[in-house]
Amino acid sequence: MPRRLLRRHRPQKHDDPRRQTAPGSAPGIVSAPENAKPTEITLIAYDEVRLEERVIDDVGEARAFLDGDWPVVWLNVVGLGDSDALQSIGEMFELHPLAMEDVTSLHQRPKVEPYSNCMYLVFRQPHLADDGTIESEQVSVFIGEHYVVTFQEHAGDAFEPVRHRIRAGRARMRNAGPDYLAYALTDAVIDTHFPLLERLSDQIEDLEHTVILEPSPDAVPEIYALKRQLLSLRRATWPLRDAIGTLVRNEDNDLIREPTRVFFRDCQDHAVQIVELVENYRETATSLLDVYLSSLSNRMNEVMKVLTIIATIFIPLGFVAGVYGMNFERDHPLNMPELGWAYGYPAVMIFMGLVTLGLLLYFRHKRWIGPP
Amino acid sequence: MPRRLLRRHRPQKHDDPRRQTAPGSAPGIVSAPENAKPTEITLIAYDEVRLEERVIDDVGEARAFLDGDWPVVWLNVVGLGDSDALQSIGEMFELHPLAMEDVTSLHQRPKVEPYSNCMYLVFRQPHLADDGTIESEQVSVFIGEHYVVTFQEHAGDAFEPVRHRIRAGRARMRNAGPDYLAYALTDAVIDTHFPLLERLSDQIEDLEHTVILEPSPDAVPEIYALKRQLLSLRRATWPLRDAIGTLVRNEDNDLIREPTRVFFRDCQDHAVQIVELVENYRETATSLLDVYLSSLSNRMNEVMKVLTIIATIFIPLGFVAGVYGMNFERDHPLNMPELGWAYGYPAVMIFMGLVTLGLLLYFRHKRWIGPP
Amino acid sequence: MPRRLLRRHRPQKHDDPRRQTAPGSAPGIVSAPENAKPTEITLIAYDEVRLEERVIDDVGEARAFLDGDWPVVWLNVVGLGDSDALQSIGEMFELHPLAMEDVTSLHQRPKVEPYSNCMYLVFRQPHLADDGTIESEQVSVFIGEHYVVTFQEHAGDAFEPVRHRIRAGRARMRNAGPDYLAYALTDAVIDTHFPLLERLSDQIEDLEHTVILEPSPDAVPEIYALKRQLLSLRRATWPLRDAIGTLVRNEDNDLIREPTRVFFRDCQDHAVQIVELVENYRETATSLLDVYLSSLSNRMNEVMKVLTIIATIFIPLGFVAGVYGMNFERDHPLNMPELGWAYGYPAVMIFMGLVTLGLLLYFRHKRWIGPP
Amino acid sequence: MPRRLLRRHRPQKHDDPRRQTAPGSAPGIVSAPENAKPTEITLIAYDEVRLEERVIDDVGEARAFLDGDWPVVWLNVVGLGDSDALQSIGEMFELHPLAMEDVTSLHQRPKVEPYSNCMYLVFRQPHLADDGTIESEQVSVFIGEHYVVTFQEHAGDAFEPVRHRIRAGRARMRNAGPDYLAYALTDAVIDTHFPLLERLSDQIEDLEHTVILEPSPDAVPEIYALKRQLLSLRRATWPLRDAIGTLVRNEDNDLIREPTRVFFRDCQDHAVQIVELVENYRETATSLLDVYLSSLSNRMNEVMKVLTIIATIFIPLGFVAGVYGMNFERDHPLNMPELGWAYGYPAVMIFMGLVTLGLLLYFRHKRWIGPP
Amino acid sequence: MPRRLLRRHRPQKHDDPRRQTAPGSAPGIVSAPENAKPTEITLIAYDEVRLEERVIDDVGEARAFLDGDWPVVWLNVVGLGDSDALQSIGEMFELHPLAMEDVTSLHQRPKVEPYSNCMYLVFRQPHLADDGTIESEQVSVFIGEHYVVTFQEHAGDAFEPVRHRIRAGRARMRNAGPDYLAYALTDAVIDTHFPLLERLSDQIEDLEHTVILEPSPDAVPEIYALKRQLLSLRRATWPLRDAIGTLVRNEDNDLIREPTRVFFRDCQDHAVQIVELVENYRETATSLLDVYLSSLSNRMNEVMKVLTIIATIFIPLGFVAGVYGMNFERDHPLNMPELGWAYGYPAVMIFMGLVTLGLLLYFRHKRWIGPP
Repeated sequence: MPRRLLRRHRPQKHDDPRRQTAPGSAPGIVSAPENAKPTEITLIAYDEVRLEERVIDDVGEARAFLDGDWPVVWLNVVGLGDSDALQSIGEMFELHPLAMEDVTSLHQRPKVEPYSNCMYLVFRQPHLADDGTIESEQVSVFIGEHYVVTFQEHAGDAFEPVRHRIRAGRARMRNAGPDYLAYALTDAVIDTHFPLLERLSDQIEDLEHTVILEPSPDAVPEIYALKRQLLSLRRATWPLRDAIGTLVRNEDNDLIREPTRVFFRDCQDHAVQIVELVENYRETATSLLDVYLSSLSNRMNEVMKVLTIIATIFIPLGFVAGVYGMNFERDHPLNMPELGWAYGYPAVMIFMGLVTLGLLLYFRHKRWIGPP
Repeated sequence: MPRRLLRRHRPQKHDDPRRQTAPGSAPGIVSAPENAKPTEITLIAYDEVRLEERVIDDVGEARAFLDGDWPVVWLNVVGLGDSDALQSIGEMFELHPLAMEDVTSLHQRPKVEPYSNCMYLVFRQPHLADDGTIESEQVSVFIGEHYVVTFQEHAGDAFEPVRHRIRAGRARMRNAGPDYLAYALTDAVIDTHFPLLERLSDQIEDLEHTVILEPSPDAVPEIYALKRQLLSLRRATWPLRDAIGTLVRNEDNDLIREPTRVFFRDCQDHAVQIVELVENYRETATSLLDVYLSSLSNRMNEVMKVLTIIATIFIPLGFVAGVYGMNFERDHPLNMPELGWAYGYPAVMIFMGLVTLGLLLYFRHKRWIGPP
Repeated sequence: MPRRLLRRHRPQKHDDPRRQTAPGSAPGIVSAPENAKPTEITLIAYDEVRLEERVIDDVGEARAFLDGDWPVVWLNVVGLGDSDALQSIGEMFELHPLAMEDVTSLHQRPKVEPYSNCMYLVFRQPHLADDGTIESEQVSVFIGEHYVVTFQEHAGDAFEPVRHRIRAGRARMRNAGPDYLAYALTDAVIDTHFPLLERLSDQIEDLEHTVILEPSPDAVPEIYALKRQLLSLRRATWPLRDAIGTLVRNEDNDLIREPTRVFFRDCQDHAVQIVELVENYRETATSLLDVYLSSLSNRMNEVMKVLTIIATIFIPLGFVAGVYGMNFERDHPLNMPELGWAYGYPAVMIFMGLVTLGLLLYFRHKRWIGPP
Repeated sequence: MPRRLLRRHRPQKHDDPRRQTAPGSAPGIVSAPENAKPTEITLIAYDEVRLEERVIDDVGEARAFLDGDWPVVWLNVVGLGDSDALQSIGEMFELHPLAMEDVTSLHQRPKVEPYSNCMYLVFRQPHLADDGTIESEQVSVFIGEHYVVTFQEHAGDAFEPVRHRIRAGRARMRNAGPDYLAYALTDAVIDTHFPLLERLSDQIEDLEHTVILEPSPDAVPEIYALKRQLLSLRRATWPLRDAIGTLVRNEDNDLIREPTRVFFRDCQDHAVQIVELVENYRETATSLLDVYLSSLSNRMNEVMKVLTIIATIFIPLGFVAGVYGMNFERDHPLNMPELGWAYGYPAVMIFMGLVTLGLLLYFRHKRWIGPP
Repeated sequence: MPRRLLRRHRPQKHDDPRRQTAPGSAPGIVSAPENAKPTEITLIAYDEVRLEERVIDDVGEARAFLDGDWPVVWLNVVGLGDSDALQSIGEMFELHPLAMEDVTSLHQRPKVEPYSNCMYLVFRQPHLADDGTIESEQVSVFIGEHYVVTFQEHAGDAFEPVRHRIRAGRARMRNAGPDYLAYALTDAVIDTHFPLLERLSDQIEDLEHTVILEPSPDAVPEIYALKRQLLSLRRATWPLRDAIGTLVRNEDNDLIREPTRVFFRDCQDHAVQIVELVENYRETATSLLDVYLSSLSNRMNEVMKVLTIIATIFIPLGFVAGVYGMNFERDHPLNMPELGWAYGYPAVMIFMGLVTLGLLLYFRHKRWIGPP
């Protein structure tokens, strides 16, 4: 079973120092990551009354919307396999080459980077893989004056509720600008953390049951795997909190308007909550290990007590029996006269019984054996 | 008994990652939380001379007071079951939808949020549940220019003394504005922490007695449960301290007037004290675990010493007895002539006695057995 | 003996969550604390040439001095039993009701609070109680433009040297204003920490001797008690450091004049030193526990080695003796012919000797037994 | 094998307090470090169209380039053996004597120091030595208005890709100024950390396998060696992060132009990632030690259980056998009548079998022996 | 041997809470510390061309130099025994009484204090005492506009190289003002830390060898003593770093001129390095203790395995031998017929051999005994 565990604490992608571009290579290279999904592009443009939604085959199609009078154009790119398309998008929206490079290198920490013409947000969207490990997908969001461009590794359903709200034509959504859309997407990504935390919380509760009620050696690698997962999650959530904090405070930037900032403050609240829960779980996992170790010591004590009680009673008795098994010649009056007594055997047996009783009382006094 | 403990360290509500609204859903939705109590609304309006206090059935009744010349109108909402009423209140007082959403999502951390027309304060009011667990109720306070709106999950008696002071007509209370009322309510909520801390302090003292005077394996899950409770409490108290600190410092805000700030500074003092005590208790709990583990090791040492003393004395003696129980043929003069000696048996017994004495002295020298 | 220890780590008063006023009660109530000493008031007024010192029976007597042209009037109140007198003093000096409430609630942390007409300083003055526990008395100091008012729980001798310096007429003391007097009093209170730290340092040295030279199970509760005392002391000294730091930096305040600030900087130095020593002692206490635990393990190892050496030598020998004690019928030539050999017994004894020697060499090789 | 480990955790050069210049000696002395490689100097000067690359024998040759109209002159010095040449370079570029001293004292922490006419950057470039230890080379970079001067201890291949990009004539490289070249070099140095982190990650994975699947005592010194390496790496990477942070923020400095700052921000990202991974690995290593210790305790428990089961079964049985080996005289009817019974022996054997069975059931009940 | 260790971790002087002046005494008292050396005063005055160096018997002699046109007058006071002389110096240079008090109270933390007419620097200069303990001497430096006054406890040789550089007439030294001289002295004091760190590094390496290759119980007090020394050193080096940081940043002060600030930055670098090494060593010492504890557990495991193997093999065999040593009457056919078999004895011996073999294979399978 521990082998399964070893698999379980496989670190998340962003923990992996591998998958770097060749050292010293030029920055700003957009290249499809290994095993990247084929690229699918959808575009949604809307204002208070209009709503246009379509699948884009040729990136050029987006140009018309961008040049139109749409207050919000949302280009959603799923799958990073087509580096040419990505390159074209980068050029059309004038995204900084370094940011575009980050989009395709999948080990980014969550961050918010201001560029002269846009904000670049990177998030990690964690989800449970089939084998029980936590995986995390990189989500990039560019906020411009009239557009939002998002890049996802896979088609997840995290953005679906947002699309739904746009289609439903809720006033706040449709009236607001790209900053509010970006908030809605950020919030959607952050919300994906909670089911995961739930699962970790359940796992901790299971471990508590194991460790306190029926401690087993398997608990330790379980706790270790849990701690590594939490370490990994922490690495993703601390910068998330800081990144959103930057959005909330950032005042020399008019891409995020004042009324939207209140909404990002709400996101920040959630991010802080996630960070605190992760820290909380980490401390709990550490405490669990202490509990397990002390229960191990307790059991060792139990085992030792049984051994000591048995040995302390029977080794001396065995010695007495050994003495009366000696073959000294009985001719000499001083040699083991007890053996010739009429009540020798019963006397020895009673003596042994008394010794046993005395020792039992002693152990009872020492509380090694409890009252029945 | 450990099962009871497992129940005891059930985390507080604000630690639970569950009970989130559906991921990606629109913000600002006011919906009654699960198992919410029916809503009861009371209104108190007062100035130096007048005092009006009534139960409100229809939210609209409050409008008259709000539009009147009352310097302080306090609307107290108990039970969050009637989402329509909450919605109406939010609209009447022009409370921000995000704040209203927070009022009904019961996992908020303590916080202070400035809005353009009011301050929004969230606190957690802890109390002991019947089964010995710590539960905490969410209390929301909105401070406006002429009103205070409070939302409680249950009808607690925390606000009763404040109501009493209003009715008693104390000058400071009746002369001051909504900020002073908010202070009085905040202070009342903070004060509910102290009886809890008292109980935790008692629990630690009990554990000290257990761990130092009669260590038992049950102590470990007890300490673990205590640590989880403290962890949970810490999560509620750190942000409380920071939130009130915000109120004290916040200078670009004229809802909290200068003279009232001194009173909030007093609240902050209490909050700092709570945080410090919680941290103190956590360190103490950790130390207690160390003490328990060392006492386990001590006991193991004791057990081992008893085993070693008995085994070291009687195994060699048993060997000697075994030697003289061998059946070598006595015809040959070199075969166990001792068995034929007249004083063989007494000699062996004396020899054994001397060996025992020597070992006892050795153990005494090693301090394994003490002077009587 | 551990019971005595349990008493010893009784937390200091400011650690006790009890002794709060009733939750939700109005602030600013001056009420005599439980078991308060009767109030005695002395007044010293001085300038460069004049010195007036008297015991005050009726608070009103102080008014004349306050209204006179005395540059410094020092009212020292010892014992907080007479709440009317305290109330009158508060009114005469126009002290803020919240500050007056703090004077009589004896669980304050050290702090410095600016009010519009005065500075309010709270310190804790620790001293050794008769039963070896650390107790701390609360000292309040108000600095006004022409007065200093101090409140002490008991008549201690901490302020006596300051009085002595006033009477001695030292130029710096008599020329300076109330801020310098406040500095002198602050310094006197801080200095009371050092004898206590000395005692803790001695205690650590004793524990080192115990733990390293003759480890005993009593060391653990001793270390635990020490750690609790240090935890308690830390809670009192960290805010002390911060409070004095506030005085040193505080520049928008002209009650503490520039030249006196240099003197408070000296106080701060001492406070930092106290904090560092306390932290130092805490880490040392933690290290001591590690040393003790490792010495426990060492002893266990020793005990186990003795047991193993004895058992490993004598159990196999006992087996050999047992074999030759078997009663197989000697008629059959293959049944234990050794018993009939002329040199059977000596051969067996020599064989046993060789086995013993071999095992001893093995243990020596394993370094379980050292060279003589 | 541990000896190899002791070698492995040999601290990196910058951890070594040795190799200081004589205490109190004058600052700014450029002296060749011990075992320094002979100095080789190459110069690359380029602008958008031109590219000049040559080996410099006499430092004076560089003067012409410096005085020419080259926007970027890069002087790369490999090997610090020729202190005269270093001295001349320092004078020609007017580098501060203290900076030049730092170039040749090889224990510098990564840092960025602004001087009036240039920026001085120090980095450490780690690489794997042949014997598996991590070594780090000191790299110094001076950024001037029209030049970059770099000093390396050995000819590494870290800068080769940068040279390659210059030769390849990429627009961004050739158009940009010395600050962009400095960025490219910094990035190249930072990238050398990743292969190392990969190796450490592999090492941790190996240790996980060892510790969880087949714990061996060798794991502890392995973990210890790993922790020391990580400690050493941390000392090099924390200041690296801070140093680059300085470059990103530093706004009163026009040597690093605004557009290049974005690129340094990318470097900073990588540096933060390195720091986080190192911290992550440290915590993981600590956790691994805990896992190992608990697996040790588990094994001890296993061993003790086997001993206790065997001893608890056979010591009492041996006692029974001993009793019936006693030599009491059978003439007396009460002396061991069992020995004369027709079914005495089978009865005793069956009794012993029942005792064994009972004990086995007891152990099974205690879960010391599992179901098959 | 541990007694020697107890002596070794005697805390440094600045850790000692004793040696305070009487609580509450007036500040600014210059009194010779206990056991103070007799005072010797030397004066060096220099400018670019002139150099005057002399021993001062009467403090008044210095006045002429101070009133002359010397740009730098350095008064070096060694030994604090003559409080009158110190008093005179304080008056002549108008040094603040509090600073003068600090000069003679020998438990100061390193600090930098600006006074209106001078800067006051306190450092601690550590050195190895004869008995292997670390001792530290207090060095005070006053920087004025035209003078530097230094106070040392003993005549050390730390300042000698500086004197040498002055005499040698190096341009930078002789041209610069008192701030550069102060830098040179500061640097000299900081450099005295490195030989000490070297020694601690050697000590750690020795401990590594001990702990990993041949763990002995003496290692624990050694590690403990090392940790206390490091704790003590940390207390001296953290404030050193901060103090010098103050000098580097301090911009509202023109006693330290801009060009000299670069040199102090170099000092700061060294101080940071010292702090980091001390922290590094502390973590390493803690890790070493973990390694030692795990090696203890490993050894215990080894010991227990030997015991268990021996006991598990021979206790059952002994039981078998005991069975055939029973004295059941052979007349009854069911009583121990094996004893009468012709091959009974060989059969039993072979049976025992097979049991032994089986157990050995079992232990081999459990990996308690390794392949040869």
